[in-house]
Amino acid sequence: MSHSLDPEDWQAFRARARDMLDTLIDRMEDYSDGPVWTSPDGYEPKLDTAVLGQGAVRTDQALLELMQYGVGNTHPRFLGWVHGAGTPSGLIADMLAATMNANCGGRKTGAIRIERAVIDWALATFGLPETGSGLITSGTSMATVIALKCARDSRLGFENRKTGHEGQGLVGYTSSHAHSCLDRAFDMLGLGGDALRKIPATPDGRMNQDLLAEAIRCDRQAGLTPFVICGTAGTVNRGAIDHLSDLADLCRREDIWFHVDAAFAAALQLSETHKDKLNGLSRSDSIAFDFHKWMQVNYDAGCVLIRDEDSHRRTFSDRPDYLADMGRGLGSDMPWPVDYGPELSRGFRAVKIWAQLIEHGPEKLGAVVDANIEQARYLATQIKNTPTLELLSYDDLNICCFRYVGDQVETDLDSLNQELVIQLQESGLAAPSTTRIDGKLAIRVNITNHRTQTEDMDVLLDAILRIGRRI
Amino acid sequence: MSHSLDPEDWQAFRARARDMLDTLIDRMEDYSDGPVWTSPDGYEPKLDTAVLGQGAVRTDQALLELMQYGVGNTHPRFLGWVHGAGTPSGLIADMLAATMNANCGGRKTGAIRIERAVIDWALATFGLPETGSGLITSGTSMATVIALKCARDSRLGFENRKTGHEGQGLVGYTSSHAHSCLDRAFDMLGLGGDALRKIPATPDGRMNQDLLAEAIRCDRQAGLTPFVICGTAGTVNRGAIDHLSDLADLCRREDIWFHVDAAFAAALQLSETHKDKLNGLSRSDSIAFDFHKWMQVNYDAGCVLIRDEDSHRRTFSDRPDYLADMGRGLGSDMPWPVDYGPELSRGFRAVKIWAQLIEHGPEKLGAVVDANIEQARYLATQIKNTPTLELLSYDDLNICCFRYVGDQVETDLDSLNQELVIQLQESGLAAPSTTRIDGKLAIRVNITNHRTQTEDMDVLLDAILRIGRRI
Repeated sequence: MSHSLDPEDWQAFRARARDMLDTLIDRMEDYSDGPVWTSPDGYEPKLDTAVLGQGAVRTDQALLELMQYGVGNTHPRFLGWVHGAGTPSGLIADMLAATMNANCGGRKTGAIRIERAVIDWALATFGLPETGSGLITSGTSMATVIALKCARDSRLGFENRKTGHEGQGLVGYTSSHAHSCLDRAFDMLGLGGDALRKIPATPDGRMNQDLLAEAIRCDRQAGLTPFVICGTAGTVNRGAIDHLSDLADLCRREDIWFHVDAAFAAALQLSETHKDKLNGLSRSDSIAFDFHKWMQVNYDAGCVLIRDEDSHRRTFSDRPDYLADMGRGLGSDMPWPVDYGPELSRGFRAVKIWAQLIEHGPEKLGAVVDANIEQARYLATQIKNTPTLELLSYDDLNICCFRYVGDQVETDLDSLNQELVIQLQESGLAAPSTTRIDGKLAIRVNITNHRTQTEDMDVLLDAILRIGRRI
Repeated sequence: MSHSLDPEDWQAFRARARDMLDTLIDRMEDYSDGPVWTSPDGYEPKLDTAVLGQGAVRTDQALLELMQYGVGNTHPRFLGWVHGAGTPSGLIADMLAATMNANCGGRKTGAIRIERAVIDWALATFGLPETGSGLITSGTSMATVIALKCARDSRLGFENRKTGHEGQGLVGYTSSHAHSCLDRAFDMLGLGGDALRKIPATPDGRMNQDLLAEAIRCDRQAGLTPFVICGTAGTVNRGAIDHLSDLADLCRREDIWFHVDAAFAAALQLSETHKDKLNGLSRSDSIAFDFHKWMQVNYDAGCVLIRDEDSHRRTFSDRPDYLADMGRGLGSDMPWPVDYGPELSRGFRAVKIWAQLIEHGPEKLGAVVDANIEQARYLATQIKNTPTLELLSYDDLNICCFRYVGDQVETDLDSLNQELVIQLQESGLAAPSTTRIDGKLAIRVNITNHRTQTEDMDVLLDAILRIGRRI
């Protein structure tokens, strides 16, 4: 009996794959139709003896049943969490990746060269030196861990990788509006979240630089070691962008690593109209961002860029015998991705980014950015012109937070707006998310979606007013 | 001008995707033919203005050019690093994943339920309680970081996530034959690699338990805090499996977290013949392993399992306002994967595992394990019977290390065997890797490949003898 898992009948496999492809493209053609989101209540996809080992037909039935219960981000009115919509052409790159089935931890392969090409493009695009380095990650969360480990180890000396960092008193700084992945990175790296000082923001949502300078002074006086300032380009709630140039100046003066979390707003760099907002980003020591957000690459595809390749490599490289450099053959062509990050096993994420850039190009991706910003502007204007709605924050980017206030004064507006957003999601009409702005529960609209049209804002507002009145 | 990245002509896109699919399946039919590996020398896939934004035709040309420069692990004679071969049916699951384009950090979606189903299956398969938890990761490297963070934070108390762990003196233990990802996890977590004591192995390649007990005693006497023992199921060089039951006993006595790195050998659990080798694994507090190795799921697909869900969640969970539990709608159905690991952005890795288990089932995957072990046994026997070859290690599993010794005594055998492996890889005939066994450079054959046939061992040995004589 053969132990091969290849199809016994390749013709049948070909027909099966074609059928599946056709059905999937049907679905893609309908991305803008139907409900944004369908609740998976009652969907229990257990792996029990009734399904295990049941063959191709059962598998494909199961896959197609699953398909309806997605996140919703392929729909033009998924307007909540910062997810990109992806592209149909991403399917082509993913098909190629599945066929190659490459492990991209290392080895001398074309796959690794594709990743280098993407990193080189990103370094040039963000104005970092071509001698810099980088890595494709699952997302900004992992990119942040990698960048902050570089900052940590560069400060302590790379021997701390062996000895640990007890008693060193490392502290870092970020805005109180920064993303929670920074706290989590401090936790991961053994520094503890408290060692990341949360500097209050000025009313425009940017880190208060006077308070930052003061915090650094106090920490130095207390005998602690400031080692990193984490600027934010695009806060989650408002899209605010810190004063990156000023932070770069401060970091140079204080000899501190300058990291920037540009998770979604990195895409502004592709817009001729809006790239100025990122002034100063090119002076950072490291940048973490996502291709799968505003650049519309399929999940998952994040990236970390590091100005100083030597620091990056010495933060991660570590070669046991079975990974020694062979000079030629499969075991050569170093450094490898495993020299730049924690993963030895890693899929071929780079190819869909590379293909997206070849097919659509930075200009077309930048046009999505421009359009989404225009749509948010339109939405903010409509909200201002609607007495039953209250605009809570809008900063001329792609994010808009507001709430339904109706015409009653005493209502518990937090509960009302929370219920409103849930009913909106359950209706399938649109999916904004919620957050809190100055303590108030807000409907949060974030537009990072190439399928979204201005009319979708009208559909959204009509639904909100209708549901709000009903509640 | 539309900013949509969807195809303007869906019929043309459908034709394009079908053409690509056909070409990819042609390639799959030929997986066992042609060279194992083609050097990418001269392949420079730069993203310059000549290719950026050049559209679909150029993209597909570029993808197909790339295809020839893979790692080689889809070929039956890729016998080096521990990579699985993947399955053609994995393409179907990946196509579905690309169409759904789900971010699997959280939200109430079917995708998250698929991941839970895979984790539940894995908990049951490895004999952990159904109240346990787990996460699909890029691979064992990340799974190890997650498991050891649980061990760290459970020992220190979860408030250490805020305060850091300075002055706690945490130490852990593993075999000197253990994988380097354990050292890297200690480094990542801020403990330093030296805090992971490398306990020498007995001649059979397993951690010496007397020396382990002694090391724990010494560390406790020195005022340090032993917090984890990392057993190995399947060492890289030899496939040795630590005395897991004894380690479990010791951990219980000493109140220490018991982690097992079962990266590839976890698959033994699917073999009726060989599952006994993993006795004691079910008593671990955490297991890290890969689906993309011996279980033949496409890259990347690793997994971490944690016995105590509460510890797992408290090690990672951390909810800012924009991720608050909404009770109903998209923002409900918690805990989410982001409560169990460092990634908020993460692709839909679980679906290809789920599909593999439905289509092929654990029994068929176990048969691959059995066949590969038989093939290694055949290879070891042939080596023993060949005077110009020297068997350096073989432990009745799927790994066999040996070298060409020819009939001359004075030759520099390390250089000769290194050159031999490189020439073998360059020839495209077979791709073993190298390692060192007792200081000697060894040809390392690891068989974790459902396409490998016993005859492939003959092809390998013929080529080795021919190249060896020529050198």
